[in-house]
Amino acid sequence: MKKLINHPEYVVQEMIEGMALAHPQIVKKLPDTHVLVRADLSKEKVALVSGGGSGHEPSHGGFVGTGMLDAAVAGEVFTSPTPDQLLAAIKAVDRGKGVLLVIKNYSGDVMNFEMAMELAEAEGIQVKKVIVDDDVAVKNSTYTVGRRGIAGTVFVHKIAGALAEQGASLDEVQKVAEKVISRVRSMGMALSPCTIPAVGKPGFEIGEDEMEMGMGIHGEPGIDRTKIASADEVASTLVSYILEDMPCREGERVAVMINGLGATPLMELYIVNRKVAKLLQEKQIQVHKTFVGEYMTSLEMAGCSVTLLKLDDQLTELLDAPAQTIAWS
Amino acid sequence: MKKLINHPEYVVQEMIEGMALAHPQIVKKLPDTHVLVRADLSKEKVALVSGGGSGHEPSHGGFVGTGMLDAAVAGEVFTSPTPDQLLAAIKAVDRGKGVLLVIKNYSGDVMNFEMAMELAEAEGIQVKKVIVDDDVAVKNSTYTVGRRGIAGTVFVHKIAGALAEQGASLDEVQKVAEKVISRVRSMGMALSPCTIPAVGKPGFEIGEDEMEMGMGIHGEPGIDRTKIASADEVASTLVSYILEDMPCREGERVAVMINGLGATPLMELYIVNRKVAKLLQEKQIQVHKTFVGEYMTSLEMAGCSVTLLKLDDQLTELLDAPAQTIAWS
Repeated sequence: MKKLINHPEYVVQEMIEGMALAHPQIVKKLPDTHVLVRADLSKEKVALVSGGGSGHEPSHGGFVGTGMLDAAVAGEVFTSPTPDQLLAAIKAVDRGKGVLLVIKNYSGDVMNFEMAMELAEAEGIQVKKVIVDDDVAVKNSTYTVGRRGIAGTVFVHKIAGALAEQGASLDEVQKVAEKVISRVRSMGMALSPCTIPAVGKPGFEIGEDEMEMGMGIHGEPGIDRTKIASADEVASTLVSYILEDMPCREGERVAVMINGLGATPLMELYIVNRKVAKLLQEKQIQVHKTFVGEYMTSLEMAGCSVTLLKLDDQLTELLDAPAQTIAWS
Repeated sequence: MKKLINHPEYVVQEMIEGMALAHPQIVKKLPDTHVLVRADLSKEKVALVSGGGSGHEPSHGGFVGTGMLDAAVAGEVFTSPTPDQLLAAIKAVDRGKGVLLVIKNYSGDVMNFEMAMELAEAEGIQVKKVIVDDDVAVKNSTYTVGRRGIAGTVFVHKIAGALAEQGASLDEVQKVAEKVISRVRSMGMALSPCTIPAVGKPGFEIGEDEMEMGMGIHGEPGIDRTKIASADEVASTLVSYILEDMPCREGERVAVMINGLGATPLMELYIVNRKVAKLLQEKQIQVHKTFVGEYMTSLEMAGCSVTLLKLDDQLTELLDAPAQTIAWS
């Protein structure tokens, strides 16, 4: 196993320490937890808490900061964060205006976040939740009932975070998060597997001349395993699945995210974007903004996902609002 | 060869198109070239042009924009850009205040940039150059006389770009670039090789339990091939080579860059940073700012480099000045 680590048992702990040491102006580590919270929590506002298994960096700690999340809770690699750590995060960031939990739809995550929600409510904190399920590839999966939540979650962080920063109420922030969820769709594909440090060998195999369309960010099965196709063919397939699920009319405005899963070079992501942009142009769907890079990864998996978010005026303004985080600024 | 591409012959062309399509507010493609220039070239100022072989993204096109480069010229993968494309870039961005070329120290790059410089001067454009050679690993290498230029180059783009944006003269911008070069040192290491698309197989091999310290960003030989060490040991080795070459006294201020070579997860880069931060703390070297991510990659090579830049008041202010580019903002 070729990894730059010290010991598999300490990867999450040491990563969180490394993040806090790198960006003390933006985040700090909550003592005795794997929770990153904003360095400055003085502003009275609705707080946003997200999190999930580690191995998807920069999600979610990279999106803690002004205009996005107030706290991110990291579980062990590909493992849901525990209710007690989630509760610690909620308590640390609540300023009396309520807390919104942004949960990716995996059964373990949903269960643990809901448990933390109950515990927090029992302590008098007002908590609401949204569940992101943007992955159009498959319904029900290894760890999920319903659709999985993947890179589109980052748009929820950005837009709900911007509205919270403006002083909106918990109901309003929840409502805009639900609106994003109703208008965001993603799908991914993988060329190679990844290795959980504590396991030490790849979780699955993909043949030297194969790829898997619709693969999940933990290596959950996708739709189809085929011979490697060209970047243009991959882009076309991903976009057509997304638009079949969420039709876009001529003249509609979208934000596009081309997300790398970890080992895929930016060069390849931009080659994919070239085709995605051309496909959207042909359909006269207007691209307001494009994000290309690593937003929600799967350790060193090779592959990418495409996300489309249908914008209206409110979402456009909130997407464009300033943010100061590690991975979005 | 597992790559998300269409045809090896078109990867650079299609990547540049994909970048221009993704970020029209920031960059545009110079027709019939592999040159990205700022979308807005209206400001009268000294222009900065850099470039080099492709495969190191986001270098250099990702650093074109306000406060950094005016143009980036992309050669074929790991191949110097041609003098005619460099000349086209110089002519496109010159606003009568002169042009500074930022060259990484590879013999082919230096030769082609110098040829373009002569051609531009023959057309009456004032051009100066700086050559970045921050890699402390080896003197003289496969493609280089003297030291190689690697990730420290991005600090030259940032700081010289900020001074040019403030309206400084060509001499002043060259002088500050030279100052950065005299105060920046880097060293890298690799866990796995990368594959040039047109070649179709890895340029070299590294055994399953091996790593190479001091490897160059094109896979040039390093100092030492050893058994894989821990992240802490790797960080210690890289920092000690850098500080041996450029001693830092107690209380001195530095900027730190932990740069991923392509396939190494952010998780691992932050684990490396944790140790680098601790080592600098122990030596009472003050870290002004830390950058962790992909700044100068080698396609899908696994590994990282560490860069230290010694700051003074001028460099600190210019490093912190605003910039609006694809990969630095």
